[in-house]
Amino acid sequence: MTQRLVVVGGDATGMSAAAQARRHRDVSDLEIVVFERGHFTSYSACGIPYWVGGHVRERDHLIARTPEEHRALGIDVRLRHEVVELDVAGGRLRSREPATGTETWTGYDHLVLATGARPIRPALPGIDAPGVHGVQTLDDGEALIAALAAGTGRRAVVVGAGYIGVEMAEALIRRGYEVTIVHSGAQPMSTLDPDMGVLVREALQGLDVNVVGDSEVTEIRTGDDGRIRAVFAAGREHPADVVVLGIGVAPETTLAAAAGLPIGNHGGLLTDSAMRVTGYDNIWAGGDCVEVLDLVSGMRRHIALGTHANKHGQIIGANIGGGYATFPGVVGTAVSKVCDLEVARTGLREKDARAVGLQYVTATIESTSRAGYLPDAPVMTVKMLAERLSGRLLGVQIVGREGAGKRVDIAAVALTAGMTVAQMTTLDLGYAPPFSPVWDPVLVAARKAVRAVRERG
Amino acid sequence: MTQRLVVVGGDATGMSAAAQARRHRDVSDLEIVVFERGHFTSYSACGIPYWVGGHVRERDHLIARTPEEHRALGIDVRLRHEVVELDVAGGRLRSREPATGTETWTGYDHLVLATGARPIRPALPGIDAPGVHGVQTLDDGEALIAALAAGTGRRAVVVGAGYIGVEMAEALIRRGYEVTIVHSGAQPMSTLDPDMGVLVREALQGLDVNVVGDSEVTEIRTGDDGRIRAVFAAGREHPADVVVLGIGVAPETTLAAAAGLPIGNHGGLLTDSAMRVTGYDNIWAGGDCVEVLDLVSGMRRHIALGTHANKHGQIIGANIGGGYATFPGVVGTAVSKVCDLEVARTGLREKDARAVGLQYVTATIESTSRAGYLPDAPVMTVKMLAERLSGRLLGVQIVGREGAGKRVDIAAVALTAGMTVAQMTTLDLGYAPPFSPVWDPVLVAARKAVRAVRERG
Repeated sequence: MTQRLVVVGGDATGMSAAAQARRHRDVSDLEIVVFERGHFTSYSACGIPYWVGGHVRERDHLIARTPEEHRALGIDVRLRHEVVELDVAGGRLRSREPATGTETWTGYDHLVLATGARPIRPALPGIDAPGVHGVQTLDDGEALIAALAAGTGRRAVVVGAGYIGVEMAEALIRRGYEVTIVHSGAQPMSTLDPDMGVLVREALQGLDVNVVGDSEVTEIRTGDDGRIRAVFAAGREHPADVVVLGIGVAPETTLAAAAGLPIGNHGGLLTDSAMRVTGYDNIWAGGDCVEVLDLVSGMRRHIALGTHANKHGQIIGANIGGGYATFPGVVGTAVSKVCDLEVARTGLREKDARAVGLQYVTATIESTSRAGYLPDAPVMTVKMLAERLSGRLLGVQIVGREGAGKRVDIAAVALTAGMTVAQMTTLDLGYAPPFSPVWDPVLVAARKAVRAVRERG
Repeated sequence: MTQRLVVVGGDATGMSAAAQARRHRDVSDLEIVVFERGHFTSYSACGIPYWVGGHVRERDHLIARTPEEHRALGIDVRLRHEVVELDVAGGRLRSREPATGTETWTGYDHLVLATGARPIRPALPGIDAPGVHGVQTLDDGEALIAALAAGTGRRAVVVGAGYIGVEMAEALIRRGYEVTIVHSGAQPMSTLDPDMGVLVREALQGLDVNVVGDSEVTEIRTGDDGRIRAVFAAGREHPADVVVLGIGVAPETTLAAAAGLPIGNHGGLLTDSAMRVTGYDNIWAGGDCVEVLDLVSGMRRHIALGTHANKHGQIIGANIGGGYATFPGVVGTAVSKVCDLEVARTGLREKDARAVGLQYVTATIESTSRAGYLPDAPVMTVKMLAERLSGRLLGVQIVGREGAGKRVDIAAVALTAGMTVAQMTTLDLGYAPPFSPVWDPVLVAARKAVRAVRERG
């Protein structure tokens, strides 16, 4: 008998799950229905800053697979359908077409919740003014690009100094804007320790970005014409013609929570290793709406990142398709770029380690990413955390120029494998003058961390 | 009582060992004497192609630490001293100064053999003609640069298509030469499988390098004036104004072998994990003159690479200094660059796996090193070998453009940790559009390798 898989959310997790399930089970065996409340499927939200900045010329380049392409595979994609109620006991859900108001109940044998995340929008005066832009969806990107094209002013304020904030700063610089980043932390990029964040601030300032820290935004002020005039933060006024919000996202679990599904401390759905919602045999969830296990701390976290979302979808689809796949967890790797500055991190920061009772030592080194005798060898700073006594690697943060960012992968794999920093000192990493000094910067950091472990005892 | 450490060979291993030992033990505790037959200490032989090619302007930029700097640390560096005999029973060695013919016996408490490797120079007609250049030492580099500056012809033949061969091809292109590479393999870069080597050949041809494979050189012909005219290989004549030898190196163990020290199947000294020569408590060896354990195959290999040599020196120096350090082995990582082509490998090739009785599957994929929607996203090919049944990663080869080469480090760490390709599919690697597609190419290869393991059974 034909089963029905219903997917809520048609982006990375949802469409990967659908496509992977379809690969294993044909239309006569598995009907697949996808409800997506927006206009698009399978697009790269991470690419929006590069579209705004002009690296990517057209919106459609960010779409990996269109609804039509999915339909051609026998996946019933229903755009502009919002799922408004989940009836777990009845194995069905209620969807609504905003355009017509029509509501429909649809039963499922398997359900995939891939509802993603929603941008955090603090309830500030002026937050809903035209000219205040999020950058989570293609519609957001389109609106921002139209506003930038139509705008006459040249002053932009970015609220938030995380990955999206700094990437948007670069995009706006490329479009000729004077950019101010207003953020609440001591240093930008709070996913790094402050002593590494300061390097990001200095680099941003070197790009003529006005970086304003320790500043909670209190108001976005508009003129009588309704247009934005300024952002107020910590008692200071920052003139603005356009405002971009990059404050972060929270898991979108309204539907799931109303249905009584288990939600974790960080607001995300809880799943098992196979990405089934804990306690449910036929409900699966993945991507930005779930919490994941942090393999280093042993705690659950919420991380909104396309690479995890795609993996989750692939795993869910394989399992529904009759195969077997699991997601063991994350080590918290992230990398970003603003102009020629590369920023990366994996594992625990100092405060993460403290929060879970891990005692640690740190080692910070400066090196070049190529042989130092090559001209203009780019400089990078590597900070490494290792557990006291055991010497187990706990985390790595990197700030530098070309060749810096993806070196974090060395540490990501070492963390996954549970290596000690002593074991890392003899890693057989690729060496040639255009790629690395004879001691790769990660090895230099590991050697210093070994000494720190020994000295601290 | 003051002990004496004698080091034979003043480059990476020898001087690292000396400097590291000195860090732990002062002059009153440990006298350190280094015999070096050349003119320099601690230089980067790997940098010679970049000096010849003009990236590095001066010879001295390749010198990490001069004899004077070492002497200032209390290390007695004796240049132009050749060690000609080792008396293990007597704990002493005999050195000679070629300039004067003076010979001296010097006793040691600890001995470090860091005699390096010698270039392979086949006994061919014309091999010793002026205009035939090695590129192993700074003297070699200096001679080649002088010859190129003085030369009028513009045709260069590089013999050998390994790392040095292709790097020298780039250097000669940069100097305006028409370059022919003559090599004996089916494809260049025999450290790769031929199906990956073919990509290197095509890229070299794209750079207008004339690549002549399956061709053993039989003669280097000179004119009546003694100058080089052509290289003959496999019955064909390749006109040449200058010839560069990049055929490879063999461990230089003449001294050690004459003293009865243990030599392995590949001609290198055998050591234990602490880098002591097997069976000797106070004789240490490292760098290009030793064999190392291949952690993937379980066999010993000879690998001449500065990064290993430096690690060995540091480990030896720590142990002599009263500390503790070991070298577990290598996984066989190497990376190289020729113009914008990046070539990397780690672990076993197909023939390596067969040679040690490992059954395997392969997976080859093409991907971009950045998000595909970014303009000019560079393309790369990744080949992965996994053990049949177990799915253990056995090796990775990468050929591509920017961002390709150092991705081999992901596989190098995974090999060290003994990961399976299934475990690799969920590695938490750095993702952002300028750094990677949402599925890193290494993950794409791992997924395909998982399918291959399953299909092969």
